[in-house]
Amino acid sequence: MKLSQGFWQTYKEVPADAEIPSHQLMIRAGLIHKAGSGLYNYLPMGLRSIRKVENIIREELNKIGSYEITMTVVTPGELWMETGRWDKMGGLMLRFKDKKDSDLCISPTNEEAVTDIFRKTVKSYKQLPVTLYQINTKFRDEIRPRFGLMRGREFTMKDAYSFHIDKASLDVGYQAMYDAYCAIFTRLGLEFIPVVADGGAMASADSKTHEFQVVANAGEDLIIYSPEAQYAANVEKAQTIRSKTDYDMNISALTDVETKNQETIEDVSKFLGTQPHHSLKSMIYSATTGSESHLILALVLGDDSVNEIKLQNYLKCDHLTPATEEQLKFAKLWKGYIGPVGLKDDIRIILDSAVNQDASYVVGANKKDFHLKGFNPKRDMKKMETADLRLARAGDLTLDGKHSVVEKRGIEVGHVFQLGDKYTKDMKVGVLDQNGKLVTPLMGCYGIGVTRVVAASIEQNHDANGIIWPKAIAPYQVYFATIVKAEEYAKIADEIYTEMINAGIEVVYDDRNAGPGNKFKDADLLGLPFRVVLGERDFSATQELEIIDRKTGETKKVKREELVPTLQKLLK
Amino acid sequence: MKLSQGFWQTYKEVPADAEIPSHQLMIRAGLIHKAGSGLYNYLPMGLRSIRKVENIIREELNKIGSYEITMTVVTPGELWMETGRWDKMGGLMLRFKDKKDSDLCISPTNEEAVTDIFRKTVKSYKQLPVTLYQINTKFRDEIRPRFGLMRGREFTMKDAYSFHIDKASLDVGYQAMYDAYCAIFTRLGLEFIPVVADGGAMASADSKTHEFQVVANAGEDLIIYSPEAQYAANVEKAQTIRSKTDYDMNISALTDVETKNQETIEDVSKFLGTQPHHSLKSMIYSATTGSESHLILALVLGDDSVNEIKLQNYLKCDHLTPATEEQLKFAKLWKGYIGPVGLKDDIRIILDSAVNQDASYVVGANKKDFHLKGFNPKRDMKKMETADLRLARAGDLTLDGKHSVVEKRGIEVGHVFQLGDKYTKDMKVGVLDQNGKLVTPLMGCYGIGVTRVVAASIEQNHDANGIIWPKAIAPYQVYFATIVKAEEYAKIADEIYTEMINAGIEVVYDDRNAGPGNKFKDADLLGLPFRVVLGERDFSATQELEIIDRKTGETKKVKREELVPTLQKLLK
Repeated sequence: MKLSQGFWQTYKEVPADAEIPSHQLMIRAGLIHKAGSGLYNYLPMGLRSIRKVENIIREELNKIGSYEITMTVVTPGELWMETGRWDKMGGLMLRFKDKKDSDLCISPTNEEAVTDIFRKTVKSYKQLPVTLYQINTKFRDEIRPRFGLMRGREFTMKDAYSFHIDKASLDVGYQAMYDAYCAIFTRLGLEFIPVVADGGAMASADSKTHEFQVVANAGEDLIIYSPEAQYAANVEKAQTIRSKTDYDMNISALTDVETKNQETIEDVSKFLGTQPHHSLKSMIYSATTGSESHLILALVLGDDSVNEIKLQNYLKCDHLTPATEEQLKFAKLWKGYIGPVGLKDDIRIILDSAVNQDASYVVGANKKDFHLKGFNPKRDMKKMETADLRLARAGDLTLDGKHSVVEKRGIEVGHVFQLGDKYTKDMKVGVLDQNGKLVTPLMGCYGIGVTRVVAASIEQNHDANGIIWPKAIAPYQVYFATIVKAEEYAKIADEIYTEMINAGIEVVYDDRNAGPGNKFKDADLLGLPFRVVLGERDFSATQELEIIDRKTGETKKVKREELVPTLQKLLK
Repeated sequence: MKLSQGFWQTYKEVPADAEIPSHQLMIRAGLIHKAGSGLYNYLPMGLRSIRKVENIIREELNKIGSYEITMTVVTPGELWMETGRWDKMGGLMLRFKDKKDSDLCISPTNEEAVTDIFRKTVKSYKQLPVTLYQINTKFRDEIRPRFGLMRGREFTMKDAYSFHIDKASLDVGYQAMYDAYCAIFTRLGLEFIPVVADGGAMASADSKTHEFQVVANAGEDLIIYSPEAQYAANVEKAQTIRSKTDYDMNISALTDVETKNQETIEDVSKFLGTQPHHSLKSMIYSATTGSESHLILALVLGDDSVNEIKLQNYLKCDHLTPATEEQLKFAKLWKGYIGPVGLKDDIRIILDSAVNQDASYVVGANKKDFHLKGFNPKRDMKKMETADLRLARAGDLTLDGKHSVVEKRGIEVGHVFQLGDKYTKDMKVGVLDQNGKLVTPLMGCYGIGVTRVVAASIEQNHDANGIIWPKAIAPYQVYFATIVKAEEYAKIADEIYTEMINAGIEVVYDDRNAGPGNKFKDADLLGLPFRVVLGERDFSATQELEIIDRKTGETKKVKREELVPTLQKLLK
């Protein structure tokens, strides 16, 4: 593309609503254009990257025998009603009525739609297993869309769905997809971690699920990671052991102590001169199942946090939310001073299993401005219920106790999930098995956030001057900037541009009437893998051009005839 | 693709709602799956065709220097309000509110969105001209979606928009796009006609517009066509001359004649023993401009029809609709007996210019069950206003009087249109021209109905047994059917399949355990350009396979080693 004729504009200003580097850079480098809240148009440069991501995904999925389809963006409400998700999907699904007053929505996901296609098409085990995928537009009506393509409302997603006659086949298909994902993210040039994820309270015990996380500071997800143990899990799902703890083993009587305005573990510990883990953190939740709600007190060591997913899975409740101010008031509890002693009987108390029940702790006294010292769980608790409640964190050990784990921030770009028979059962899908018996097939589903991948790549690969594209998904491969004035050298530059084009090199040719400073700034901002510079003075003296590696900053001078072969080697 | 492992199913039954061949065949051949009213999922076979169409379009548009972008499917209402189209677009645009109560719609077209991108990016004539296009999902909430992909609600469209500093540049860009469209539809293997279309009442006199019509019986558009004169126009826009007419030149007095229950030109002519063109057809319309409405009487020869677009353009009114029953009643007019004599003064009368004003005609008498004989326009009309009102039809002559025109039915698959400054003006776009003056750029817009192209192709190319794909857009190129039982021949078939794959031939391999009858039926239904058959008996005797041309039915026997080279030659 010749910039003098191209459609490309860069910007110095950082857009006011762009909080993270990828969002700022994608706007500033002219990759995307904001159409509205959480809505972005893809400009020529941005779309080229997106298409490259799509093609790599497509190639790897075709390799494992998946078939590409396209499902409608607008889907009928009826389908969602078959599985009950019309009501359960919540506010993220944008619903509306058409002219005939029929319910429609813009698909945030397509399990129902693909199952409808499947049940029309497949009747026998002989046609199984089968994996269908699409790369298509999705919409989620986020309340607070942000971070550009990272959490937009409209986005491009690859969603795949596999169907199987039994769990063994599902496991094989799942592994094939897992491997394809590793191949995809490797080809995309991303540093990623496949992470054990949480399947939710409804998932059966043997159903597998992994998230593919791109490591980056702006990531919204926290990963517990041990490279030595090859262990990685979403913090909510992570299974670790608390590292060795010096419990306070001095048993004493329960004593009231005034702690006026000391409402956090940190404050109380400082005030009393104790360690945070010599206190117990008391968290009150409201657990709802069907129409019934109960209050729950969860107790963890003072420097730990409650993993609400673990707690919910343990309670097997539909919803778990922190108790509201009104609920606390009604139960006569004071925020900052809650504890396990003297609670109303209908509040269920659960103690984290990392709490040493023989040790002594500071706890809230359940009256304003007071705590209790010398709380000994074994002695002072009437009913004793324990469970693994604590949230894993850096410094914990892997389950075998051998390795320490670290925390990494990640951007979820992919998800593989064994759905089991949830959708096929609700939608009454039957397939004849080898014995002529009608069975309910099992499903897996597999997503990749295509547009999010591009943002995540930039989040992971940029510097103060701009984007640093991995070769595989750069909009173009080479930024060819000329610093020439004489007509003669402009002609030579045109020829060199044509030579690169003819050699199949994807090149942006900055032939604009601008100074080297501006051209190099734009080149760094756009961040193509290599910049080639033709300077009139240099070239006239030595017939050489300069190649600069955007990532390493290395420069290299080459004669004109070496340019194309050198670039071809570098781009491999 | 091996069918034993593939995801493909054909159907014998014609779906109840499928009225036209392309709709029936696309469902029966397993190309699409109905998701809801006017909503179709694209199955693997169908999607492959759609992608080929997309790629041909993309290549030709890139060739003329257009840039691909993607605009959001969901667009904010604000944008549409800038041009007033939020209110004017009518019911086809699906509008809704998001969680924050903001207005959104699913784009049926993208003039506003692209102009918004343009005004952010382009500030100077130096960046012009520029053409942007996208291939994306569109939605129109048709009241009566039908004909499958032909008039669905959700569909894939290529929409391009060009921006220019002046009309001369717009004309050049328009011609380049016109030529690219000709190249595209030629490559797609379609019989098409570029047709002069109507720009609407608002279009300026020198603004060009053409429709690209695929000739097919099921077409909803009527084209007036003279191949000899290289003239083609949408019937509404067609400029022709009525062929020589024998007017009734016997002048007589105006006479009442009872014509009880004779309410059509045909009935009256038969009843009175006259020719239809010896009557005048009287059509009453209501013409509205702003809040004012007037009744109009349009008079054409009895065998002609009124071209309402011509009439509206002549009247320069906002809306033109046939008068309602109430309006007729209020004006004391009887349907079937309306005429130009004795009308209320406020009804404007317009006579088609093909009416010989010296001749004699039968007209309605403006009283029930009566007509008038001997109506002579020159003598009997107080106010005389004439205009070209008649609808062109087969048998008319081209404007030079040299050639006769025919009628063809067409499916509109593309449209090129000079928009002028409508959107750039409303959206306050300014660009600096060569003299540093801020000017309003001009626009062109150019659409191709991608999914409709596939349906139109089938509508034009099919027979009783199924689809007949043009080579360029067939889902695959070859249907390889085997009739083998012995393990040995199955192995040979597998090898031959691999040979074709390795040679880059796109082949469906029917290795299913089915009889030749079923396989051939499926092959004809799917309609790939060539069928290759490996019959165990034939092959064992002569080592030959059979190649059948789906279009011509020609068969040819080739030795195994000739198969690939022969196919490669045939597929060129």
